[in-house]
Amino acid sequence: MSDQWLESLITVDPQTGYELAIKLSRMGVKYTQPSDDIRQRLRPVYGEDGNSLIASSHVIATHFQTVAAANNYWRD
Amino acid sequence: MSDQWLESLITVDPQTGYELAIKLSRMGVKYTQPSDDIRQRLRPVYGEDGNSLIASSHVIATHFQTVAAANNYWRD
Amino acid sequence: MSDQWLESLITVDPQTGYELAIKLSRMGVKYTQPSDDIRQRLRPVYGEDGNSLIASSHVIATHFQTVAAANNYWRD
Amino acid sequence: MSDQWLESLITVDPQTGYELAIKLSRMGVKYTQPSDDIRQRLRPVYGEDGNSLIASSHVIATHFQTVAAANNYWRD
Amino acid sequence: MSDQWLESLITVDPQTGYELAIKLSRMGVKYTQPSDDIRQRLRPVYGEDGNSLIASSHVIATHFQTVAAANNYWRD
Amino acid sequence: MSDQWLESLITVDPQTGYELAIKLSRMGVKYTQPSDDIRQRLRPVYGEDGNSLIASSHVIATHFQTVAAANNYWRD
Repeated sequence: MSDQWLESLITVDPQTGYELAIKLSRMGVKYTQPSDDIRQRLRPVYGEDGNSLIASSHVIATHFQTVAAANNYWRD
Repeated sequence: MSDQWLESLITVDPQTGYELAIKLSRMGVKYTQPSDDIRQRLRPVYGEDGNSLIASSHVIATHFQTVAAANNYWRD
Repeated sequence: MSDQWLESLITVDPQTGYELAIKLSRMGVKYTQPSDDIRQRLRPVYGEDGNSLIASSHVIATHFQTVAAANNYWRD
Repeated sequence: MSDQWLESLITVDPQTGYELAIKLSRMGVKYTQPSDDIRQRLRPVYGEDGNSLIASSHVIATHFQTVAAANNYWRD
Repeated sequence: MSDQWLESLITVDPQTGYELAIKLSRMGVKYTQPSDDIRQRLRPVYGEDGNSLIASSHVIATHFQTVAAANNYWRD
Repeated sequence: MSDQWLESLITVDPQTGYELAIKLSRMGVKYTQPSDDIRQRLRPVYGEDGNSLIASSHVIATHFQTVAAANNYWRD
């Protein structure tokens, strides 16, 4: 995966930071399973499983900690 | 999802911060499964599964770490 | 849930802080499943499942990190 | 549980800190399931399940982060 | 495993840091199961299981926290 | 377990720190299940289960956060 997809952790506001956390979470899945076809096939399965959705939300939460710290919590 | 739903991590007190952590947790589910219908259908299933409730509480705990740090733990 | 249940993260000592972490964990379950009846019914199930107990202990550990940091680890 | 079981997060060295992390992990289980009988009965079950042991080790790791930070990583 | 595979946590930019987090995640699997044959055999199984992919993404997120902090979030 | 097995979190370089994180992860399992025989018997089971390997890697990641912070990320 040689594309440039992550240039900075700095975002203009918390919501953009949250959306970056989502992207970071998805890229973890993509690097682990690079086949678009397989990921496409799996999505409806875990998208309709409450526990998978909660687990996805946990990964986002972990990345959001990183992005929020990077942005000094958008305090300034 | 172009709505503005997160303007700041700063809250007036710890309980409001905790409730923001809940919102951040739920938005992670919503971004992963945008269909209101499907989420509506899944809710009673994981809402009556002890392990799902514990997992949900874990996601909230992770976001609460972020919100609490952002607010300097409401120490001042 | 409009009750005031969380006024501060500051506690007199580590053990009180640990007990606050337990409360924070339980409130995550309560906000996700507000029905007292359903939670009451689920408790004996996950209370006798080793993995659920370990998962509960993990949520407490995550909140205890927050509470301990808020209190500067009760170092002073 | 009115016993005093946690007086300080400060320990003389890293290993004692690690053992405190274990205690903190176990107390999370104990507060969630206060019955000695039930916990006694569950122990051999999860003690012989590899995934439960890994999960227990994860809880210890989370508490060890807290204890290590409290002790400034025993750097001095 | 006496090879030198990790020389520094410092990377030139966030994406290289993310890729280091992936490497750190994979090495955790490799140290736990050193057999190339067994790991090779397991890969297609968890690579087609949505929950395993989410769990892998969570490990990456945890390491990315470390790498990002090491690099001061590539802020400078 | 009265052996001295952990003297310091300080290591000469990141890779040695990573290997210490592995040791910390394994000790969590050992303290929870002290029987060498039982642990020996369980190892091939979770060593050939992709999800167990990912979970083990997560525990290592959590300890590596601690060790890396203790060493100031080997920045100097």
